[in-house]
Amino acid sequence: MAEAWETSVVKSVNAIYLLFSAYLVFVMQLGFAMLCAGSVRAKNAMNIMLTNVVDAVVGTVSYYLFGFAFAFGSGSNPFIGTSLFALKGVPNETYDYSYFLYQWAFAIAVAGITSGSIAKRTQFGAYLVFSFLLTGFVYPVVAHWVWSPAGWLSPSYSGTGGLLFGAGAIDFAGSGVVHMVGGVAGLWGAVMEGPRVGRFDAFGKPVAMRGHNATLVVLGTFLLWFGWFGFNPGSFNKILVPYPDAPHQGNWTGVGRTAVTTALAGSTAGLVTLFGRRLLVGHWDALDVCNGLLGGFVAITSGCSVVEPWAALVCGFVSAWVLIGLNTVALKLRFDDPLEAAQLHGGCGAWGLLFTGLFAKEELVIQAYDSGEVGVRRPFGLLMGGGWGLLGAQVVEVLAILGWVSLTMASLFVVLNKLRLLRISVDEELTGLDISSHGGYAYVDDSQPRFYGDFLRMQDGARS
Amino acid sequence: MAEAWETSVVKSVNAIYLLFSAYLVFVMQLGFAMLCAGSVRAKNAMNIMLTNVVDAVVGTVSYYLFGFAFAFGSGSNPFIGTSLFALKGVPNETYDYSYFLYQWAFAIAVAGITSGSIAKRTQFGAYLVFSFLLTGFVYPVVAHWVWSPAGWLSPSYSGTGGLLFGAGAIDFAGSGVVHMVGGVAGLWGAVMEGPRVGRFDAFGKPVAMRGHNATLVVLGTFLLWFGWFGFNPGSFNKILVPYPDAPHQGNWTGVGRTAVTTALAGSTAGLVTLFGRRLLVGHWDALDVCNGLLGGFVAITSGCSVVEPWAALVCGFVSAWVLIGLNTVALKLRFDDPLEAAQLHGGCGAWGLLFTGLFAKEELVIQAYDSGEVGVRRPFGLLMGGGWGLLGAQVVEVLAILGWVSLTMASLFVVLNKLRLLRISVDEELTGLDISSHGGYAYVDDSQPRFYGDFLRMQDGARS
Amino acid sequence: MAEAWETSVVKSVNAIYLLFSAYLVFVMQLGFAMLCAGSVRAKNAMNIMLTNVVDAVVGTVSYYLFGFAFAFGSGSNPFIGTSLFALKGVPNETYDYSYFLYQWAFAIAVAGITSGSIAKRTQFGAYLVFSFLLTGFVYPVVAHWVWSPAGWLSPSYSGTGGLLFGAGAIDFAGSGVVHMVGGVAGLWGAVMEGPRVGRFDAFGKPVAMRGHNATLVVLGTFLLWFGWFGFNPGSFNKILVPYPDAPHQGNWTGVGRTAVTTALAGSTAGLVTLFGRRLLVGHWDALDVCNGLLGGFVAITSGCSVVEPWAALVCGFVSAWVLIGLNTVALKLRFDDPLEAAQLHGGCGAWGLLFTGLFAKEELVIQAYDSGEVGVRRPFGLLMGGGWGLLGAQVVEVLAILGWVSLTMASLFVVLNKLRLLRISVDEELTGLDISSHGGYAYVDDSQPRFYGDFLRMQDGARS
Repeated sequence: MAEAWETSVVKSVNAIYLLFSAYLVFVMQLGFAMLCAGSVRAKNAMNIMLTNVVDAVVGTVSYYLFGFAFAFGSGSNPFIGTSLFALKGVPNETYDYSYFLYQWAFAIAVAGITSGSIAKRTQFGAYLVFSFLLTGFVYPVVAHWVWSPAGWLSPSYSGTGGLLFGAGAIDFAGSGVVHMVGGVAGLWGAVMEGPRVGRFDAFGKPVAMRGHNATLVVLGTFLLWFGWFGFNPGSFNKILVPYPDAPHQGNWTGVGRTAVTTALAGSTAGLVTLFGRRLLVGHWDALDVCNGLLGGFVAITSGCSVVEPWAALVCGFVSAWVLIGLNTVALKLRFDDPLEAAQLHGGCGAWGLLFTGLFAKEELVIQAYDSGEVGVRRPFGLLMGGGWGLLGAQVVEVLAILGWVSLTMASLFVVLNKLRLLRISVDEELTGLDISSHGGYAYVDDSQPRFYGDFLRMQDGARS
Repeated sequence: MAEAWETSVVKSVNAIYLLFSAYLVFVMQLGFAMLCAGSVRAKNAMNIMLTNVVDAVVGTVSYYLFGFAFAFGSGSNPFIGTSLFALKGVPNETYDYSYFLYQWAFAIAVAGITSGSIAKRTQFGAYLVFSFLLTGFVYPVVAHWVWSPAGWLSPSYSGTGGLLFGAGAIDFAGSGVVHMVGGVAGLWGAVMEGPRVGRFDAFGKPVAMRGHNATLVVLGTFLLWFGWFGFNPGSFNKILVPYPDAPHQGNWTGVGRTAVTTALAGSTAGLVTLFGRRLLVGHWDALDVCNGLLGGFVAITSGCSVVEPWAALVCGFVSAWVLIGLNTVALKLRFDDPLEAAQLHGGCGAWGLLFTGLFAKEELVIQAYDSGEVGVRRPFGLLMGGGWGLLGAQVVEVLAILGWVSLTMASLFVVLNKLRLLRISVDEELTGLDISSHGGYAYVDDSQPRFYGDFLRMQDGARS
Repeated sequence: MAEAWETSVVKSVNAIYLLFSAYLVFVMQLGFAMLCAGSVRAKNAMNIMLTNVVDAVVGTVSYYLFGFAFAFGSGSNPFIGTSLFALKGVPNETYDYSYFLYQWAFAIAVAGITSGSIAKRTQFGAYLVFSFLLTGFVYPVVAHWVWSPAGWLSPSYSGTGGLLFGAGAIDFAGSGVVHMVGGVAGLWGAVMEGPRVGRFDAFGKPVAMRGHNATLVVLGTFLLWFGWFGFNPGSFNKILVPYPDAPHQGNWTGVGRTAVTTALAGSTAGLVTLFGRRLLVGHWDALDVCNGLLGGFVAITSGCSVVEPWAALVCGFVSAWVLIGLNTVALKLRFDDPLEAAQLHGGCGAWGLLFTGLFAKEELVIQAYDSGEVGVRRPFGLLMGGGWGLLGAQVVEVLAILGWVSLTMASLFVVLNKLRLLRISVDEELTGLDISSHGGYAYVDDSQPRFYGDFLRMQDGARS
């Protein structure tokens, strides 16, 4: 009886924690929508918001039907899950609905990352196919590798051969699983589509194409920050777990520290980008801080739970320069990704995986992956004295994601391109997708006074 | 001592769950404000946002003074509550402040639903009277019927005569209590006011009056989705409740499943509306997905906790066609509801009540309403083999709400109309309410360069 | 063993409550950004949003490095903390990471309050210095006085001499510590900078300078309201604390009641401002309701946990008139604070501290500060029969904040002014900071059709 009561307490406390974290992660979908809308021209705002809304609704249905099964279906297949389709068999002892909901919020975020890369010049039919495939298949497979106990890259892998390099890859909340997957897909999309019309002039020099609304960019960035408090600290999945190796500490400590490392890495990256770009370009630019922040968040997402706060400063500092560097390279190569998604999510995501291999602290790794069990040993960060095992596994994850996403998504974009289903016509692009495909602009302006009388009244009203 | 400690745990866990759910429901007020603002012309944005802000502040004070008392005041009156005015007697064993706060967030949402129907053409004084009456009296009475244990329609009714048809009406989070009430009030408002000037041309053909800002519509829709995670899963009120009939399960399972059914119904409805409207109109329109999503959410709100996830797909599929169908009928009848509130909240709300009568599953009904007590039997969904009792009670709720809200709100609008206090003049309507009543427009545009030098600097700045 | 389990439950339940409250408080940063952006001209939107983003990133790093140490570092210094720099020694028995995160969210809000006062006319370098000093030093010192058990003003002070006037100052969530500090800093900033160009005409009459986007103001206000549910109810820090003096009650009751008093005070102030301004100016203005709401929230923040709901109505009613009165005085004195931050956060903050000294209820004070321990006596509100002790301490807090912030921040502004680093040139101000310092405007408008053919298609699209 007492035991049953204790089970109820544990289950309900963990459910509150996981469900509300899921709701926060869901807010990131809104954050991406606002960020994307603000970063494109007004004439494409409707189109890009449609892609974000469609990511959510298509993703919900496809992740329910088979995405979750591919990712977390039981069985001993290290490559892909093979049960739990349409939630058949849920709830069970391992997975309750709250777990599905949390993973669902992650899944719909992936396509949102990529939508930025192919913004403004993609046919909507192609987008539907792409979004469906990415959320329903490509992403869940990677999630299975790293996050399912049956996955070959997982740090909890229990199959034949044991952990990869004795370590398994540590990608706590998905610098690789989520962000690199989205970023690499975006990379191939942007390569196949080519730059926007007018992005580079006749001499190949880049022409700035400013977004239409910086307020929306700031709104989106803050919403993403808010959502990241669900994304990273929520990835413990359970909060009521005490650590035997540290009195009065438990997952509640880890969850809090994860929120702190997240905020620190993002803020440091934002600050460094602000000053770095001031030196390079000469302006103090809010949009630079926003991009820097996001780069720092992406990078810390892998190691957020296994590094000390001071290491988060290092993570953020390097992220800023990774982002600035990749943007410079992109310009040189005349690569055009309107939201910098490939550089930001792909580049900083890869850096994040390596960072974990360098700075993960032994005690924290054991707390995050073995609930602080006494006597367990694991490889940890190279620079912390933990050997090459973990860093090796991290490098393997980077390469595996690069290979798998390139294989699947580049093929898709090639096929769509061959069938002339990928890019819209130059004429449509100049006009803007909203009017050509979506029946009207996002904005209608009728706030100007029509009659002289109104004008006078307005003048009046403007004086208090 | 141990028992006191257990009580503390239960109370604090449930309070966290209910309070944070209440905060999410409160976000819906912001969602409605953004949705409404984006859906009207810029010249009315200030007016409609004022109505949303006023709903919140008027509703807070009136719900505190008497609304909560009418809804949940104890005593054996099956029609209206008669105690707890100004929270006198709270906290008590049944209701703590967290319960009041949760119900308050519901109450202020109701007037927000209706504000869309009478947007752009209502005198502000009339709006104040309407908002006060709806939040403070009309809505609380319906809440008492269905959600108070003393209410005649309640599935927990313990008074003379027992449950209606042995079942009581299942309206878990208020497809009827909240959405139909708001929608039917909007229906009468829109009928009494008549269409906006210019909505139908001289030949009676509809002229599209697009909102001024689609970004705000998307923002509002996602915020409403976010808030619905408080609205539906939060309606269990308590999460630390184990189910004796299912080991390791409890309200935490029900709460999670409710979040899942909510997301699935909305997404399905959004998808179906996207493709349905594409077939009918020829555009891929983000605003259609938004309206479809909301229709699906409204419909699942009644049965969210008592149906399996697969049934949510059915719920959403039908909602989309209910919405498309009612919009077609509305155009034919030259009925003009700028936000489609009557069709969406009224129509999909009614469908939701019927849906529950068809698809509610016995085990889940017993879990949601009897904490899974072993041995209890109840009527459940007709198509699930549960007989006609529940469906009958659902139909009675639809009719009762239709009757009560029509009786009260239609009378109010007739009186206001007679006194010429309802609609603004044609002249004011053309000018827009913002300049005529609110002292200025919502937007001031001064972003154009004033001097040639600025123009040059701007050109400069635009190149990176 | 059982005790260890109980500790785990307590720690994890409290961590969920505190962390999610911190996330809500963080949303206030976004709320301020939107409120500020909407309240300035479009030509300055980029600048003011940059200041808000920079407050967050600069504040995160500086509060981590030393701000938290100054505020909560242990030791017996009643003026400033002297340990816990860079979180060295955290987690310990008193402070876990969740506590730091919650305090961090408060710290970054302070500079956000002040940014409004010096909007549109401050050099960005000066802003960086100001933001760093306020968040990293001036604010943490005040927080130490009132919220650290070692602080001389604290109602939990345990040092020599005992509680100030036997009471200590009750500033539960910081009407003084947060809002007055931000408001007084803003007062000196606005005084030193002088009014915006064109704010007063040649005869000294004020010219209204309406913000560019009222939708953003409403968005910001609702987000602040949402965040305040973390700010005030979250300030209990722990929710799993039973009250021995009241059966079935505990901090969960206090947390809920605090949310209720917060909503009531804000709503009452919003309503009174709406009607008051209608009488004075003649318009129904949504922006008045927004400012009124915020004034009510600021005022109740000090006493939110220790007054009954009815007293919150009084608090809100007076706040509205404090705000209206101070705004009238400001106009008379030709004082120009674009966001009314000095009047709103400074004036209503001071009123809030006095209000607590008048209306605090004994039972609730003991619950909030002694966990309802039986037998404790404390001075409480003067009008509730609790003597002059508490009111005296409240007055001392008002004066101490006024003195300390004036001493530090006025000096800073004087020095910056002398060095000609404070205010931008008139030429830059007329052009707008965005183009002169930030490389471009926040908005780019290209939604107009370019070709006649598009125009026709648009016309087409506009008819459904």
